[in-house]
Amino acid sequence: MSRQNKYDDPDFFQRYNAMPRSVAGLSAAGEWPALRALLPDLAGKHVLDLGCGFGWHARHARAAGASKVVGVDLSERMLARARAETDDPGITYVRSAIEDIDFPPDSLDVVLSSLAFHYVERFDLACQRVSHCLAEGGWFILSVEHPVFTALAAQDWIRDAEGQLLHWPLDLYQDEGERRTTWLAEGVVKYHRTVATLVNTVIDAGFTIVRISEPEPPAEMIAGRPELADERRRPMFLLISAQKRTAVQPSGPSARLS
Amino acid sequence: MSRQNKYDDPDFFQRYNAMPRSVAGLSAAGEWPALRALLPDLAGKHVLDLGCGFGWHARHARAAGASKVVGVDLSERMLARARAETDDPGITYVRSAIEDIDFPPDSLDVVLSSLAFHYVERFDLACQRVSHCLAEGGWFILSVEHPVFTALAAQDWIRDAEGQLLHWPLDLYQDEGERRTTWLAEGVVKYHRTVATLVNTVIDAGFTIVRISEPEPPAEMIAGRPELADERRRPMFLLISAQKRTAVQPSGPSARLS
Repeated sequence: MSRQNKYDDPDFFQRYNAMPRSVAGLSAAGEWPALRALLPDLAGKHVLDLGCGFGWHARHARAAGASKVVGVDLSERMLARARAETDDPGITYVRSAIEDIDFPPDSLDVVLSSLAFHYVERFDLACQRVSHCLAEGGWFILSVEHPVFTALAAQDWIRDAEGQLLHWPLDLYQDEGERRTTWLAEGVVKYHRTVATLVNTVIDAGFTIVRISEPEPPAEMIAGRPELADERRRPMFLLISAQKRTAVQPSGPSARLS
Repeated sequence: MSRQNKYDDPDFFQRYNAMPRSVAGLSAAGEWPALRALLPDLAGKHVLDLGCGFGWHARHARAAGASKVVGVDLSERMLARARAETDDPGITYVRSAIEDIDFPPDSLDVVLSSLAFHYVERFDLACQRVSHCLAEGGWFILSVEHPVFTALAAQDWIRDAEGQLLHWPLDLYQDEGERRTTWLAEGVVKYHRTVATLVNTVIDAGFTIVRISEPEPPAEMIAGRPELADERRRPMFLLISAQKRTAVQPSGPSARLS
């Protein structure tokens, strides 16, 4: 199992550092309002942020009342900036691959992960680790690049001779696995999984699906950056909100098909 | 609210009648193995088939042990053939729009619907009707044309000059609503909804998502009809298996975001 650490590549990191969301934070992330809407009340909660990057979500969780937040990332460069921008003893940053987290059972109330799992080869193992450390009824909120966006490695529109966007190309949808893209730098590896695989893997790890979201940028953000209107033409992100099932299943026939 | 009855259009019906699945039944439907895998044990169950067409699924349910099956369709032509091909007092066919079904509360164990809801304008009302008539723990199994397939009315590949398939075009994804297509006949109205809307609407009607499927044709079917290999390049169908929630919610924070 590979554990990619592209964010410690100096060129990649420099380019990521220049993205609007890296400069302005959550307010510049088109999917943030949708992700925030999926979060439960964080007051008094123990929160884990997987792939915490610069720590925006960790700091948001504390501002929203979380009693304790742990941010996990594999990139030293990301964690260095996260630590530099965080002055809060309630937030701890830990260097680890997402697949390797090992917190005690029932020790967390909310696990959050923003745009990290498409770098993770074994989504199934990661979900099992998340389930292991969450208390019953605990929340798992995640965002990934949408399967429609990850299916083709090129991740780009089809354009006419004048450069106008014609449509988004979809192909190779059922061929799950590695995609080598050139997002920000060459040789970035992302993992394409279908919508069905993403949702079913969360269910199989012991969760009930509470909500799915394929957000579009809010109108006020499109007003300021008109090019974002094209984001309405195909989904770029898939968000899932799920709750850890209790040991007692609903009545009726077997609740899972395995 | 419109209730489309294209299947009583003589030209449309004649063409539908000539499709492989209309001649050979379920074995010629690429998504049938995936839909069957989502069905619970039907032995002794009261089953409702919404958009029953020629009655293939209704007869399958009885063969699988269902004690009573009701098939609902708006098309008299469909129901006439369904009745002609059914010699079984355990199956009743009823003419009704899906949105207008009105069975007693808790009177059914399984509601099945194959490729009918994309003709229904109000998926939310239809799901509420289904939920109303199902017993707690009862099953709701449905298939629709995939949102990736319904987004553009043309529902066709992009081809090169030689006619080879280049990719599937996606556009207008977030613009939900009516699509006038020319599938089998001109002026067929389908309703495009996003994956998120389909899944969340089922949840909001009182269900727990058990499984999602974006099936590809089975290898043995592709072997006999090689053109079906292209179905792996983009999902054509979305299947959802869900179970009616019990009145008691799991412990922990509020189980729904509304």
